[in-house]
Amino acid sequence: MTIEDDFVARLRAEGEKRYHDRHPFHVKMHAGELSREQIQAWVRNRFYYQTRIPIKDAIILSKSEDPAFRRRWMRRIVDHDGAQDGEGGLAQWLRLAKGVGLDVEEVKSLRGVLPGVRFACDAYVTLVRERPLLEAVASSLTEFFSPDIMSRRIAAWEKHYPWVDGETLAYFRGRVTRAKEDSREAVDYVLAHATTPELRERCIDALITKTQILWALLDAVSLAHPGRPDAGAKE
Amino acid sequence: MTIEDDFVARLRAEGEKRYHDRHPFHVKMHAGELSREQIQAWVRNRFYYQTRIPIKDAIILSKSEDPAFRRRWMRRIVDHDGAQDGEGGLAQWLRLAKGVGLDVEEVKSLRGVLPGVRFACDAYVTLVRERPLLEAVASSLTEFFSPDIMSRRIAAWEKHYPWVDGETLAYFRGRVTRAKEDSREAVDYVLAHATTPELRERCIDALITKTQILWALLDAVSLAHPGRPDAGAKE
Repeated sequence: MTIEDDFVARLRAEGEKRYHDRHPFHVKMHAGELSREQIQAWVRNRFYYQTRIPIKDAIILSKSEDPAFRRRWMRRIVDHDGAQDGEGGLAQWLRLAKGVGLDVEEVKSLRGVLPGVRFACDAYVTLVRERPLLEAVASSLTEFFSPDIMSRRIAAWEKHYPWVDGETLAYFRGRVTRAKEDSREAVDYVLAHATTPELRERCIDALITKTQILWALLDAVSLAHPGRPDAGAKE
Repeated sequence: MTIEDDFVARLRAEGEKRYHDRHPFHVKMHAGELSREQIQAWVRNRFYYQTRIPIKDAIILSKSEDPAFRRRWMRRIVDHDGAQDGEGGLAQWLRLAKGVGLDVEEVKSLRGVLPGVRFACDAYVTLVRERPLLEAVASSLTEFFSPDIMSRRIAAWEKHYPWVDGETLAYFRGRVTRAKEDSREAVDYVLAHATTPELRERCIDALITKTQILWALLDAVSLAHPGRPDAGAKE
């Protein structure tokens, strides 16, 4: 095994065992055991995370001295903001919010976002702002696991939550391909720049912190929305 | 006069009287009194300023919560980085560097950038990072004066420095239109958001600081490259 292979294997292993698909709330989501109110709470709160993505990506842009890197990374911002009004991941998420029965303006206002969710998502922006470019890029490598989780999510939601308008799952569909491209790009960058054992450890640490952020988001949502004991797929 | 008209008039007045076209080095440049070595020094050092532009614009992006604003502002980054390799303002500036007889790789390396030029340009990035979005946007309003200076520069260089390949003045040509659009966009934003006398003062202060940054850049270049007493248009 080359140093590079070993490094990628470690990134994958450390990320995978902490990825938020193992969180009890997420396990319930994909098992069809969340109530409508819990699904809504997740969509409303996760939107805050979504709104932080173009912000943290713009910070990453600002940390690069390389026009070619910036040109590639900028696509991520366009992916979320759209090329025009009504397009892009944020607009798609708002359609999902509508699809699960939420008031789009209320979601957009971010008024209902839980404090713990804010803290976790803001910690992501802070990580990207305060750590070097390499670590900021490494923190995005949770996208390794994202295509898989998205495919499973679409299947699970279509099966278990038929009351959600299937058309509004477009965000998840789009991410299957996008996350693959994005993570390939990010891992190439990390491999090229994490040239010492110390730098590789820092990258792994950044990725672990990112998994903790995603985990904390679900902690906050599940604590505030425990669901009723008799709720679940039947509701 | 409405409050808005008065505010724009003050921004213009405060900016105009401090704009770097009044700097002795700049006056000499347009009068054809700089030596080849001084022109080269300016192009080499000003490139550092150019490289800070997409960085400060990415910071401005990261400060906005509005996808529509980010979408518009992102064009500025594309203007400098280009849609692909070899395009955009930075690539054009490097062609200008070649056109004035500099080694492009040396310019690109930023090795020859004067400390005072670094400090001034870095102060611009710091201003944008540390001040609120509104003030960061206001600091870009030196673009009010940029289309005019660019038109005069093209005419002056073609007349006085015939040894510069005219094709390589493309950056200046492009900025005439771009700076008009950019400053219109920025002034609209500033007018919409500087809604109190205090905020308007802060905007004026940001613009003044920006003019000081451009001025300090020329101070550093002119001190390090005083030119020979017998140099000038004849060289």
